[in-house]
Amino acid sequence: MGRTRAASAPGLKDVAAHAGVSVATVSRVINGGPYVTERVRALVAASMDALGYEPHALARSLRTGETRSVGYVVSDIANALFSTIARGIDDALQPQSYTMVLANSRSDPAHELDVIRHLLRRRVDGLVLSLADETSPALRDFLAGLRTPLVLLDREVEGVLADQVLVDHAAGVAAAVAHLRDLGHTRVGLITGEASTRPGREIRRAFEDAHAAAGAPIPGGFVRVGALSEAFGAQAAAALLQMPEPPTALIAGGAQITVGVLRVLRRQGVRVPEELSLVAYDDTDATELFSPSVSVIARDIYAIGQTAAALLLDRLGSGGAQRVARIPTALILRGSIAAWGGSPGPLLT
Amino acid sequence: MGRTRAASAPGLKDVAAHAGVSVATVSRVINGGPYVTERVRALVAASMDALGYEPHALARSLRTGETRSVGYVVSDIANALFSTIARGIDDALQPQSYTMVLANSRSDPAHELDVIRHLLRRRVDGLVLSLADETSPALRDFLAGLRTPLVLLDREVEGVLADQVLVDHAAGVAAAVAHLRDLGHTRVGLITGEASTRPGREIRRAFEDAHAAAGAPIPGGFVRVGALSEAFGAQAAAALLQMPEPPTALIAGGAQITVGVLRVLRRQGVRVPEELSLVAYDDTDATELFSPSVSVIARDIYAIGQTAAALLLDRLGSGGAQRVARIPTALILRGSIAAWGGSPGPLLT
Repeated sequence: MGRTRAASAPGLKDVAAHAGVSVATVSRVINGGPYVTERVRALVAASMDALGYEPHALARSLRTGETRSVGYVVSDIANALFSTIARGIDDALQPQSYTMVLANSRSDPAHELDVIRHLLRRRVDGLVLSLADETSPALRDFLAGLRTPLVLLDREVEGVLADQVLVDHAAGVAAAVAHLRDLGHTRVGLITGEASTRPGREIRRAFEDAHAAAGAPIPGGFVRVGALSEAFGAQAAAALLQMPEPPTALIAGGAQITVGVLRVLRRQGVRVPEELSLVAYDDTDATELFSPSVSVIARDIYAIGQTAAALLLDRLGSGGAQRVARIPTALILRGSIAAWGGSPGPLLT
Repeated sequence: MGRTRAASAPGLKDVAAHAGVSVATVSRVINGGPYVTERVRALVAASMDALGYEPHALARSLRTGETRSVGYVVSDIANALFSTIARGIDDALQPQSYTMVLANSRSDPAHELDVIRHLLRRRVDGLVLSLADETSPALRDFLAGLRTPLVLLDREVEGVLADQVLVDHAAGVAAAVAHLRDLGHTRVGLITGEASTRPGREIRRAFEDAHAAAGAPIPGGFVRVGALSEAFGAQAAAALLQMPEPPTALIAGGAQITVGVLRVLRRQGVRVPEELSLVAYDDTDATELFSPSVSVIARDIYAIGQTAAALLLDRLGSGGAQRVARIPTALILRGSIAAWGGSPGPLLT
């Protein structure tokens, strides 16, 4: 049977003997059966604690259907964004005695479906999902048929009824573009994620809308779309800097993209903000401790997790219509931005 | 029953009809029973895939005792150290089709025991533990009685038989102290974690041993021991800098301690390395992108996770004597260290 407790672990009989009740009574207490007074329940619970008895909870949960656990699926466990969200979720579950179990989809839509199914097989009461890809048909079909409560984090999946936590990327990006234009920047570049998840779509759309509203064209090649990775951030930044007429300001639309951008600026000795003004995502150790400190589009990442857990606990308690919680973004100004006085052209040194 | 699949999900009968075999045969395939040829097994598996059939794996695992999942318990999910280890574990489990589920102990020894028991109740085949506290008697007793395979990450728990991955902190710390002394630093400070986990003990011991070997006294108040947190790092750095005769060099013994130290150095305008030479843990975005880049005691954090998973998979396969894998540390020299020419005393500006 591969029981997961010690060879000498006590059984039902030991608990019954210790509490001075029948084995059937102990069984009823464990399984939440009828005809058990509060006094007997407390007595049996005390004996279970005293002996270190572990009811076979897996079997019990098959009967009761409740596990008091919530699954959180992330696309990259090593991404600080998701680990901060995870802490927010876990902290918010604590008062309700729920436990979070986290699984990693390795940014692979096929594996994403596997880990979601794995968690469901281990029976979680609800799921929070930071999906790697909203567009996978297999995943969409699976989620659409699921009855387990779901919270989608900054994702929109067609046909799937789920609570959502959505980040208001547009406000932060619009503020950044407006501020840079006020400072004389007419050549602003953007590096951001693919359209297969909401942040990539929203950041790009907000960037384009802000330019359209100002009646300002975006120079060709100034929007670079790719993976939310350091490698892509570095590659895109290097490509932008090599253009005959490079941007005078840059928005890095992702925390890992930002690390790649900062590496390239450091390596190439680009002077910030004299040669390039920079606005980045998110407010991390790297953006704060870089010299100069980097202006950021910030959002309360921990609150994303807390909000997701609150939505899920609400739904587990009551059900009701699907809800959407919105997380604001703010532009935090630091030393990485300056007015642009020079003419566009190869970097001045 | 609170089944966690769609209302329209196919059942055993549907799979049997699709495959053209009996329900009993499907059941034998699912449960690994006898009298099933490879051809029939493949046929049934293909039908299960085609129909999206989900065997009730929880019930199945009660019979077979195997879950192909591994639990990883961390003390702080938001710590990049643990999330990088988690990625190492998960990646190493992938070829064997194991899934990692991660749970967070919130640095609380009582909750640590709770989450371990929670994972065991959900039936994991093995556990990897980054314990918050090695000294909790309740946890020690529980782990000592456990038959589930365990891997302890850089932890030593008395009386607990487990595979271990141990980091060789001593080599890195000894190299750092020796290098700083070679550069004329006789006043080297240390900020590190509590003695309740192995890294804190090892780093402190190596620091003291390196001084003893050089016949050099450690000035009073130069060793600061506390939480592995940014807050403690900042507080300890501020306290060291305020001493009448402050250190001329500092070793920050933890990645989160380091972030706190860097914040204080930045805030107080301490010039590195002119006023203070710095060696930090670990090689992170913050230490790399700080100006100047920070010399670090580095280890392959991802390899800690990979090694842990390899030990656990080995044990699940074969058993055998407990094993210890060792992860080396190396001193990486960057711009944050310089020779000390001045006399000790209040910071020169």
